[in-house]
Amino acid sequence: MKIEIAENAGFCYGVMRAIEIANRALKEYKSLYSFGPIIHNPQVVEEYEKKGLKVIETLDEADGPVLIRSHGVPPKVYEDIEKRGLKVIDATCPFVKEAQRYAKQLYDEGYKVVIFGDNEHPEVKAHLGYTNYTASVINSPKTAASIKASRVGVVCQTTQSVERFGLTIGELAKRIRELKVFNTICDATEKRQEAAKELAKRSDIMIVIGGKNSANTRKLYEICKENSRNAYHIETEIELEKNWFDGIENIGITAGASTPSYIIERVYKAIRDIVNG
Amino acid sequence: MKIEIAENAGFCYGVMRAIEIANRALKEYKSLYSFGPIIHNPQVVEEYEKKGLKVIETLDEADGPVLIRSHGVPPKVYEDIEKRGLKVIDATCPFVKEAQRYAKQLYDEGYKVVIFGDNEHPEVKAHLGYTNYTASVINSPKTAASIKASRVGVVCQTTQSVERFGLTIGELAKRIRELKVFNTICDATEKRQEAAKELAKRSDIMIVIGGKNSANTRKLYEICKENSRNAYHIETEIELEKNWFDGIENIGITAGASTPSYIIERVYKAIRDIVNG
Ligand code: F3S
Ligand code: F3S
Repeated sequence: MKIEIAENAGFCYGVMRAIEIANRALKEYKSLYSFGPIIHNPQVVEEYEKKGLKVIETLDEADGPVLIRSHGVPPKVYEDIEKRGLKVIDATCPFVKEAQRYAKQLYDEGYKVVIFGDNEHPEVKAHLGYTNYTASVINSPKTAASIKASRVGVVCQTTQSVERFGLTIGELAKRIRELKVFNTICDATEKRQEAAKELAKRSDIMIVIGGKNSANTRKLYEICKENSRNAYHIETEIELEKNWFDGIENIGITAGASTPSYIIERVYKAIRDIVNG
Repeated sequence: MKIEIAENAGFCYGVMRAIEIANRALKEYKSLYSFGPIIHNPQVVEEYEKKGLKVIETLDEADGPVLIRSHGVPPKVYEDIEKRGLKVIDATCPFVKEAQRYAKQLYDEGYKVVIFGDNEHPEVKAHLGYTNYTASVINSPKTAASIKASRVGVVCQTTQSVERFGLTIGELAKRIRELKVFNTICDATEKRQEAAKELAKRSDIMIVIGGKNSANTRKLYEICKENSRNAYHIETEIELEKNWFDGIENIGITAGASTPSYIIERVYKAIRDIVNG
């Protein structure tokens, strides 16, 4: 009997890294400040608040190190923090950072910069800063029609849909003389799904952990159901039922993007206890 | 009563220019050599053969100046001609030349070069030469899947469909990290159609000149029929009928891409003679 956790289950690399950076910093400093929640999971936010990570709206509220989340911030925020003599603890995801560098590069090369993403997303707001707020934000083939320039450079929000990105770039290519495109879409979601599929094929049962309302977890569950004999979608280990594991040889576990590893760990141990009687 | 010829009727700028260059050269030199016909119109080819323009397969057949057609040739052909001490008379369309420069630029910048076009088209064969024969040729979203590289640079054959180009670039953008695209599609056809439409709206009758089998001429005819009271598709002035012009005020003329201006001129004069009795 074997229990295996799928690769890339739960948090992506960038979020995991940000959490680790926050953990290290919280050992060193009594309190830490961050613009917005570190990840979009209420339990995690509450937990880190207790540890000393305070969510702030403006820099006036900070009197200690400021943690930059995985989404990144515009260059001006770094300057402002330093001007106040505060320490920057930078947990920007390296893939997001790369997209920021591309945005700046395209701007420096004289391209009209276009960001493929959602206007309101913090990552996009940060990218904008790297183009000195000259970039246009579009998110569909239709909005591509609004871009008028002979030299256009494109970067994208890492979590965008690759299909819609392709269609939008296709529209731009029809009307723009010179188009330089950095496809900065992150494959974390795709890899999580691929790994889940692979494990599901080798398993008799798949346990998928994540919010019942989480679209990416439901998608994971669908993939697991199609590829293994049986699959269950749970939020915590409390929902596990003993009889699911009767006569089962190979057990697989995966988790959606907003599931912290300690919840995966708890489920793993609970299953181990069940099968070991 | 008014007879008006649509702008951009007949030959595009590049072909017209090539013909003029050939005419000038034929005044200066007894014979001229060209790889392939100067334009794809049998009457024109025959006419120029009589004037001294010989179509050749290899340079061995040439003992006088060599005319480069509007499609262009690979850089090696220039070298070979000069090595033999022969003169180059370059009638490459400036828009094609620009695409060649882009192909070379992308190659020099270290991109894997992709040419959007038809493998067998002389323009594409010339572009290939400007990438030192390292480029891949694709012509559909499907063939885009064959391109594997992290930095891809695209140029296209000037006469390709902009719709299919867009779809293909969209496919590439989904899988290529850095994509630099020069949309070198020429708008000669589109402009010819737009000018015909505009004239058709101001005319009581439209005369459309061009081969009955020519797809671009038939398309012109459709546009004219939809936008003026009456439209006729003819190949030469012989087909004109007197009664078409009874009580007509405004007469418009346009012509497909392979129609030489002297045929347009003859139709113009024939109509003038008809309406002047
Ligand atoms: S935050 Fe995550 S989704 Fe990708 S861009 Fe960074 S690994
Ligand atoms: S040959 Fe003609 S179709 Fe355009 S690229 Fe040159 S004007």
